[in-house]
Amino acid sequence: MRFLHTADWHIGRRLHGFDLSAEQEDAFQQIEQIALDEQVDGMIIAGDLYDRSLPAETSVAQLDRMLQRLNLTDHLPLYAVAGNHDSATRLATGNPWYQSTNFYLATKLEEAFTPVELPDTQIFLLPYFEPFAAQQYFNDETLVHLDQAMVPVVEQMKTQFNPQKKQILVAHFFVAGSAKTDSETQLTVGGLASVPAALLQDFDYVALGHLHGKDALHEPHMRYSGSPIKFSLSEAQQSKGVWIIDTDPFQLTFKPLKPLRDVQQITAHFDDLIDPTFYAQFDRENYFGFILQDRKPILNALPRLREIYPNVVSLSREEGYSTAVESQGMSGKQIRQKDPVALLGDFYESVAKEALTAQQMSWAKETLKIANDGGTKS
Amino acid sequence: MRFLHTADWHIGRRLHGFDLSAEQEDAFQQIEQIALDEQVDGMIIAGDLYDRSLPAETSVAQLDRMLQRLNLTDHLPLYAVAGNHDSATRLATGNPWYQSTNFYLATKLEEAFTPVELPDTQIFLLPYFEPFAAQQYFNDETLVHLDQAMVPVVEQMKTQFNPQKKQILVAHFFVAGSAKTDSETQLTVGGLASVPAALLQDFDYVALGHLHGKDALHEPHMRYSGSPIKFSLSEAQQSKGVWIIDTDPFQLTFKPLKPLRDVQQITAHFDDLIDPTFYAQFDRENYFGFILQDRKPILNALPRLREIYPNVVSLSREEGYSTAVESQGMSGKQIRQKDPVALLGDFYESVAKEALTAQQMSWAKETLKIANDGGTKS
Repeated sequence: MRFLHTADWHIGRRLHGFDLSAEQEDAFQQIEQIALDEQVDGMIIAGDLYDRSLPAETSVAQLDRMLQRLNLTDHLPLYAVAGNHDSATRLATGNPWYQSTNFYLATKLEEAFTPVELPDTQIFLLPYFEPFAAQQYFNDETLVHLDQAMVPVVEQMKTQFNPQKKQILVAHFFVAGSAKTDSETQLTVGGLASVPAALLQDFDYVALGHLHGKDALHEPHMRYSGSPIKFSLSEAQQSKGVWIIDTDPFQLTFKPLKPLRDVQQITAHFDDLIDPTFYAQFDRENYFGFILQDRKPILNALPRLREIYPNVVSLSREEGYSTAVESQGMSGKQIRQKDPVALLGDFYESVAKEALTAQQMSWAKETLKIANDGGTKS
Repeated sequence: MRFLHTADWHIGRRLHGFDLSAEQEDAFQQIEQIALDEQVDGMIIAGDLYDRSLPAETSVAQLDRMLQRLNLTDHLPLYAVAGNHDSATRLATGNPWYQSTNFYLATKLEEAFTPVELPDTQIFLLPYFEPFAAQQYFNDETLVHLDQAMVPVVEQMKTQFNPQKKQILVAHFFVAGSAKTDSETQLTVGGLASVPAALLQDFDYVALGHLHGKDALHEPHMRYSGSPIKFSLSEAQQSKGVWIIDTDPFQLTFKPLKPLRDVQQITAHFDDLIDPTFYAQFDRENYFGFILQDRKPILNALPRLREIYPNVVSLSREEGYSTAVESQGMSGKQIRQKDPVALLGDFYESVAKEALTAQQMSWAKETLKIANDGGTKS
């Protein structure tokens, strides 16, 4: 069978205050088109459908439209789980009705142990859960951490395995991968809150959500799909898309998504950024995080950049300003006795790594004179 | 056909800080039992399913359970509309799937014009809407008030009327009824935000929600069901329940609900309220609003009452305290020259309409002496 694997839609998410609903809609339409073009047998959505447990009405309306479109208009079977950003309770509204159209949604741990039975595949839908839920379900207080809790979870799933079928696990948590050397496979456990990949080896495919980059894990039969769009500057370098999984023979294909507005991190001098020949290379509607290589003060840098790039999401300095001014061995008394204009020149050079120009020096002298004369300009 | 008509569940509502979810659950079970006993063909829920547009998770879980129970377990068709307390958008989640099991829910005005077609009945589901929605739908800016907006709404519904069938309207708004005199029917229009009952005369039954008392309107073929439980002291005298409607021949029967804990307003003297022979007549677990007939000060009245009645929701005085103390013609100077104990006696009598007892007078003198002696008790 062939499935599309996506996750971490985070409907309602904002990027440094910018509304991403148009980006979400655009990515969704691409995902829908890929599903139709690839004639998949269903779509896996591995958690974090919403960005918040209490989504805004507009987010509710947007996700509702998307799911109705896929399942009711396109007649695509859906296999979804709640992520840690979702409210399991709120997401579950309507759930018992969804199965009539092959929309399978798991929001509670206990739902993970009854797989969706397809002719040659079993799909286990494991929502995000806290170890406490496993303690209650298994009546075992020793299941304090996620890696401990996942041992009986997988064991119980295996009791349902039909050897005539393939098994797919849909889950939403952090999986710590294995690092393979030439001679052996060494297991690297990432911590108490992560699940060792080895624990999940008996599934034919593990469709993961939680991490936003598709390259977060490179186990042969496990993948994070990553989010459909970039949600932060730290994701600027990631390639976003969805996986197409064929179960028999097993094959994984990554289908990239083209961003409506990309998220880019640019390191440059201010004068370059405002130079038309420089910015001609960019789609200026993108979301930009700028890192200025300048050290000198730049008046109104952000408003000036926003005139050219309307969607600046962050502005910082590569080197910062010098915060500690070097006193170059002079005592406080010596500094206080210096000529004020010379002192300003030293300070400017110390911060901006440039001397004052003759024009700047002349402005400084004039302003100082006005100040000394009582504050009125002649 | 036979329907059960209820409304205004307001799931999540609190009574002066008290959680009513147990009352809601109990009333729900009675409603369910009535529906089953009466073998109704469906249940009408005329709006305000939730108390808030943004219900708490516990409220979402509670309403979800109720609707699933009725529709998926009991296989009862449901005919519901959004009320002004509901978020139409949030309530609509899952809606397109519900019709597969005869759960019909209208949250948008435009949904009101396609009736649910039953063999001999058409059910028009009109959710709460603002006149602005009608302005947009009919492209008519003159529809400023609800009574104006309802004219084309009803007109458009009538184009769908099948003369072979009965027509039921489910709606959530304020209907101004007619006041009938001996000789004629006079129409009383309640205001811009209300709908004249005459406008709705062509429906065989109008199942209303919005007002919490079943007796708010007494048109022959229109009723408010009222809320299943009492939500405030002002509803203390109301009889709560649901209507059973038979369409052919037309018949209306009120089925009362027995409150788990009733809401009662009691006017009495404090000494009676704390007298076991007096309170033996009450179920002390009820929610009580007490109106004290006393005028004298009562120390710690609320905590003392709560020891007997754990669910006191309000405490007030029938006559209040005297706020303006009568000076009985004395000047300020005369008052200041009076003996302090005598002054206290006058004041007490003025407020409490009783003289100080000998014991109280003795306490007052002792306390005054301590104060005059410098504040230490001997």
